[in-house]
Amino acid sequence: MKLRIRREAPEHIFPVDDWKIIQTKFDPKYVAHEETVYALSNGYLGMRGGFVEGRPAVDDGTLINGFYEFRPIVYPEEAYGFPRQGQTIVYVPEAKIIRLYVDDEPFDVASAELTHFRRTLDMKGGLLVREVEWITPQGKRVALKTTRIVSFRQRHLAAIDYELTLPDAPAEIDISSELVNPRPKAEESLDPRKAPLFGHKVLMIEGMSCDDQRIIQCYRTQLSNYWVSCGIDHEIETDCDYKTEIKSVEDFGNLSIMADMEPGKTLRLTKYIAYHTEQDSKASELNYRVETTLARAKEKGFERLAEERRDYLDDFWRRSDVRVSVIEPLVGSGDTARPRGQQIIRWNLFQLLQASARVEGFSIPARGLTGRVYEGHYFWDAEIYEVPFLIYTAPEAARHLLKHRYEQLDQARNRARELSHQGALFPWRTINGDEASTFFLASTAQYHIDACIMYAVKKYVDVTGDEDFLFDMGAEMYIETARLWISLGYYPDRHPDRFYISGVTGPDEYTALVNNNFFTNVMAQDNLWNAAQVVERMERERPDAFRELAAKTGLDKSEVDAWRRAADAMFLPYDETLGIHLQDDSFLDKENMDVEGLPPEKFPLLLHYHYLEIYRHQVIKQADTILAMFLLGHRFTIEEKKRNFDYYDPITTGDSSLSACIQSIAAAEIGYTDKALDYLRFAAVMDLSDVAGNVVDGAHLASIGGTWLALVYGLGGLRDYGGQIRFEPNVPENVESIRFPLTIRGQVIEVDARPSGTTYTLREGTGLEIEHQGQTVKLEPGKSVKMPTASKRANP
Amino acid sequence: MKLRIRREAPEHIFPVDDWKIIQTKFDPKYVAHEETVYALSNGYLGMRGGFVEGRPAVDDGTLINGFYEFRPIVYPEEAYGFPRQGQTIVYVPEAKIIRLYVDDEPFDVASAELTHFRRTLDMKGGLLVREVEWITPQGKRVALKTTRIVSFRQRHLAAIDYELTLPDAPAEIDISSELVNPRPKAEESLDPRKAPLFGHKVLMIEGMSCDDQRIIQCYRTQLSNYWVSCGIDHEIETDCDYKTEIKSVEDFGNLSIMADMEPGKTLRLTKYIAYHTEQDSKASELNYRVETTLARAKEKGFERLAEERRDYLDDFWRRSDVRVSVIEPLVGSGDTARPRGQQIIRWNLFQLLQASARVEGFSIPARGLTGRVYEGHYFWDAEIYEVPFLIYTAPEAARHLLKHRYEQLDQARNRARELSHQGALFPWRTINGDEASTFFLASTAQYHIDACIMYAVKKYVDVTGDEDFLFDMGAEMYIETARLWISLGYYPDRHPDRFYISGVTGPDEYTALVNNNFFTNVMAQDNLWNAAQVVERMERERPDAFRELAAKTGLDKSEVDAWRRAADAMFLPYDETLGIHLQDDSFLDKENMDVEGLPPEKFPLLLHYHYLEIYRHQVIKQADTILAMFLLGHRFTIEEKKRNFDYYDPITTGDSSLSACIQSIAAAEIGYTDKALDYLRFAAVMDLSDVAGNVVDGAHLASIGGTWLALVYGLGGLRDYGGQIRFEPNVPENVESIRFPLTIRGQVIEVDARPSGTTYTLREGTGLEIEHQGQTVKLEPGKSVKMPTASKRANP
Repeated sequence: MKLRIRREAPEHIFPVDDWKIIQTKFDPKYVAHEETVYALSNGYLGMRGGFVEGRPAVDDGTLINGFYEFRPIVYPEEAYGFPRQGQTIVYVPEAKIIRLYVDDEPFDVASAELTHFRRTLDMKGGLLVREVEWITPQGKRVALKTTRIVSFRQRHLAAIDYELTLPDAPAEIDISSELVNPRPKAEESLDPRKAPLFGHKVLMIEGMSCDDQRIIQCYRTQLSNYWVSCGIDHEIETDCDYKTEIKSVEDFGNLSIMADMEPGKTLRLTKYIAYHTEQDSKASELNYRVETTLARAKEKGFERLAEERRDYLDDFWRRSDVRVSVIEPLVGSGDTARPRGQQIIRWNLFQLLQASARVEGFSIPARGLTGRVYEGHYFWDAEIYEVPFLIYTAPEAARHLLKHRYEQLDQARNRARELSHQGALFPWRTINGDEASTFFLASTAQYHIDACIMYAVKKYVDVTGDEDFLFDMGAEMYIETARLWISLGYYPDRHPDRFYISGVTGPDEYTALVNNNFFTNVMAQDNLWNAAQVVERMERERPDAFRELAAKTGLDKSEVDAWRRAADAMFLPYDETLGIHLQDDSFLDKENMDVEGLPPEKFPLLLHYHYLEIYRHQVIKQADTILAMFLLGHRFTIEEKKRNFDYYDPITTGDSSLSACIQSIAAAEIGYTDKALDYLRFAAVMDLSDVAGNVVDGAHLASIGGTWLALVYGLGGLRDYGGQIRFEPNVPENVESIRFPLTIRGQVIEVDARPSGTTYTLREGTGLEIEHQGQTVKLEPGKSVKMPTASKRANP
Repeated sequence: MKLRIRREAPEHIFPVDDWKIIQTKFDPKYVAHEETVYALSNGYLGMRGGFVEGRPAVDDGTLINGFYEFRPIVYPEEAYGFPRQGQTIVYVPEAKIIRLYVDDEPFDVASAELTHFRRTLDMKGGLLVREVEWITPQGKRVALKTTRIVSFRQRHLAAIDYELTLPDAPAEIDISSELVNPRPKAEESLDPRKAPLFGHKVLMIEGMSCDDQRIIQCYRTQLSNYWVSCGIDHEIETDCDYKTEIKSVEDFGNLSIMADMEPGKTLRLTKYIAYHTEQDSKASELNYRVETTLARAKEKGFERLAEERRDYLDDFWRRSDVRVSVIEPLVGSGDTARPRGQQIIRWNLFQLLQASARVEGFSIPARGLTGRVYEGHYFWDAEIYEVPFLIYTAPEAARHLLKHRYEQLDQARNRARELSHQGALFPWRTINGDEASTFFLASTAQYHIDACIMYAVKKYVDVTGDEDFLFDMGAEMYIETARLWISLGYYPDRHPDRFYISGVTGPDEYTALVNNNFFTNVMAQDNLWNAAQVVERMERERPDAFRELAAKTGLDKSEVDAWRRAADAMFLPYDETLGIHLQDDSFLDKENMDVEGLPPEKFPLLLHYHYLEIYRHQVIKQADTILAMFLLGHRFTIEEKKRNFDYYDPITTGDSSLSACIQSIAAAEIGYTDKALDYLRFAAVMDLSDVAGNVVDGAHLASIGGTWLALVYGLGGLRDYGGQIRFEPNVPENVESIRFPLTIRGQVIEVDARPSGTTYTLREGTGLEIEHQGQTVKLEPGKSVKMPTASKRANP
């Protein structure tokens, strides 16, 4: 695949600072971009990066994970089993607004005369700071610094520190600190694709309270009956005279501060913001919880909240930082991006933290909490692209995600039944556990979601050793997913020794409704084998729990034999002539397409060709067979991987953001170092350089997680199937070192990989055995072991 | 396939009369059914069969062919090339309403006490007659006879003769003869599938005129700017005192007749109804045309109009009647239906006339003009199921349909371009020539529409000898359809000697997005060969016209070689082991389904299974490979046909109304007489017995045309590929004779097929050569030739 950058962030916005993203100039072109890049979130509460003034804004707002409204899904042609009720994440009441008027003139970054502008996302402190100096229409200088945090410790809490100074002249100041129930924009109602969504007012007022400086308002969604209470409280510090007024009515509340500012004096406003949400709740309870959160925050004060956040981040970076010592050639050089390597990598890692830190009870939406596109839905992205990072850096968060899937198992059972199947079929996209997809060829047909979830469960259990999760939840998921495969597949008349799975779509959505998609089949096979093994182990090791589970699920021991038999007979299409695994039975019979010869404006193909035209060609949206080569890499030789890569890579468009990172890992493994770096760069800068021109819709969390995969599995060469930690590092000659920590079964190792060799240090723990290029390495507490790099097994 | 009757018409409604459908009792259960069964139409103007009182009614109204409104098509997930503007046939202002009030009490068949009720569809006279005797709440007897016609001679005209008598008692009578602009029913707006359709008022008033007894109102559709002018005029004959009032306002007009009826006297009202329509028209012109039509009709009077209609029908029956002498065992016996054979066959033939008689400038919608389902769209049904009947009985009508396609060739060119193809791709469903389908797997993917249209063109030209049509229009269509196939298909790398067509859906919509659908490929092959032949013949025979056409279409002679090469290399999947043609490359690899073992309530499958579940199984909605065996029957041996039938028939659900007739023909050919008769019965009674429970939506024109095919091609054994008229009759032993006329190149033969032999008579013409079971038969004017039945070539 040729890498195409469709849009590029401006050079001036990224001075080099390994810990910060710094913007030194305001440019209206990038307002939308920056709402995503500067978003703050803790996995529960997310604020897009718009200014506190509420403008300029393209699609600014505040999101809460899983806070959705129902919407009817209407098809031009209905059919059985099509989901009819969608779930869409909606903006909660907006609380970060603080409007400023100086001598009655509004402050608006877009129109203001600014002598200084600097916005900093401080990834060490977790602060979003904006400093401006504004020359008012009357020529007065106004210095304003706002600092915003979203708390990690208190996931319901955010706060803004607002510091205003007039260095030279006195002025009459009005500050309006607001809480606003957002109304859908006019164009949302007119766009036919969005019309059904906001045909009604989403949030209805249910209760308010208001005192001197605090406003609490409770709303609920009309259809899904999801309740949100939002409160704001304030502290004002100044030597100047001021008075306040407070107001709270339906859809709007504000604290108004009218001050007579004297030259050189400062007014400091601290705004505390709290959100509590619950389905089928009531206002009195939610408002009480908001009161408590606000009271505790006010008692602590802004500095202490910022400190807590820094402590949390210190711990995060200790567990998660990936350092690349010679950075320029690795990421950020040349045409692909302006920002520099380490800061890019850290921004990606920071996004992973922001998406997952306090994700208890939820999963990670496709765009985290940085945008509303994909409706806040959870996809397989979480399990395949983000859970591995969490397993190795924050296993509790990984557990939350997988537990969340388990909690939706009943709905997956019902969906399977609806589709005439046994077992459970997890939804392709969902918030509340019900399938919410509409285009079934690229959703319902992607049965591989089941195997991908179970792949993540296995990796989680293998790497963390959390067998309680396995037997309390995982085993039941194994039973139901195995049943799905048995019910979906069959032994065809003409080849009774083969197990076929027909009429599916694999990860590659440019090929649909195929028979024996290699990825689906090989992942299902793994699912079935592991299900059989787990059930048998459970019977031996936890007989009481097993009996209970068998009774609950009606498990018959003959089923387990059927799983193993199907897995053993699973058909994995392979072409002897080319020596490649076939993406599906008929892939090679499709018409060729000169993907590399297409002009850049034809991408992404789905915007310029009918699906039928795409489907009939040998063209791939995203890594499919190649993804299987990575996930189940132990099953295939380097030579096979190389032949597959050579065949599939040139016809992969990368029109999906889930592709480049996987192609990077595959290229690294087979020694295509330049390609590995190109793909890694592309994945890493996807959002900061806005390569697809759609970062306004939110950060591409899968590519972000994939960037970590490409660093650690790709260049770092981590391999871990079955929980055996092995390394086959692929550090290019022009990189000095790549260093990263990994948490494994409660112990922490530090890997320092260099072209010449790799040093492994056991930072925490009692002792661990790993493997380096096939050699066993025993790690002891506090000691480092340096292993030289043996010559590669296969050179390109 | 097992034949399933899901709903059945009541026994009492069909007394035996070969020329009439007679209903002797009103039953509210069948109101919807009867609106379809008693519909009158001439192919331009169609009136559903509701009572003149306007109630009881389920979905009564008046339709004009091609009179459509645009509607936005909204997809839950948009994609490139999806049609965004739908076309939907809409009811025109309703003019057949005549309400009756006796002593202020309304007459309503549903609530009235009736001592006599008789509704007769007279297929010889073309009249719909209703006679009732009503006992009013005051106990007075009222005799009412209404006779309705839709003119064939004047396609813009209908008329109602209304005769009222009070035998015993005097009464005050009010009669309101109305013209009403129908408003969408409330439930249409609430149903999410229909909401986008009637979100606005469809017909807007544009002009009115009104005098003593005549009202003319002109409307236009809001979005498509389609104009309709509708007028009513009246004649009143009675000895009783009466006065009239006339009123015309927006959306409503009526002539009110207030009479003091004396016992034994009669009031006769004749209502003339005219419609004229035109896109982008104006009221003055359309109203003038309505005036003229009404004036001429009034001058002729009702009796003369009825006479004209009878004359027209006499001619129709002479050209078209199919008589089956021993009828009971053929159609209508046993469980499948109450009505009797000959009347059923005639009702089907009568529907074909009603759908096609005055179709100039249009095609035949899927339900003719008897219902609004499928939105009044034209499908391939017309070309494959209805055109053959027209070719052999009313070649001018066949020409109109094919000419109509030609007139939409430019839009088909544009659609091909939109889908990245050369040539022209005709729309799967359309009124105005633009594609109006929404579910692309069962519409856009059905590229075979192109080949089917060209198949009909070839049959039309071969049988009628209309070479002007071929060279004036057909040749250009051949060029553009051939180009489509060349651009859609390809020579795959692994088999460079084969021409593949991938990613299509054949006629069977229970299998989608397949490679090398046998039907598509073999029909495309025929299309390509014929295109090459026609172009070369034209160059020889009409060199000037050819040069002009070549210039217009940019035809390069090398293209013709490419067509022939692709046709010669066309891949037709075949299984050596089973000796059957494969519906597509992977059909045999799909999972088996015990179709015959499924309970009846699971049909049609599409209402009870997800498409994915249907697609992955070897289950067929409608004849696919079997249809190819019929259309291109000369290419296959009886043994091949038998093996294919044996394989595909048990897995064919017949969930489409397009299937049973084709299965009947196939069964007849291979000697499965009982099956042939079963399928024929099923096709023939589809509407009268309401076998699918959906006749309320309109008559199944394809099955109606297919009934004729099953009689003439199936039992009669007609074969005509290339215009050579051959017969292989398959008359079962328990049938005395099947007699039908055929018009061939302007001559008319009469076929009288019996088990022992067949008699051919040249009724009109100068001489014709046909073939009977491989023997040449020379027919001379007025003479009959009797050919004995030779033993069958293949016995089952």
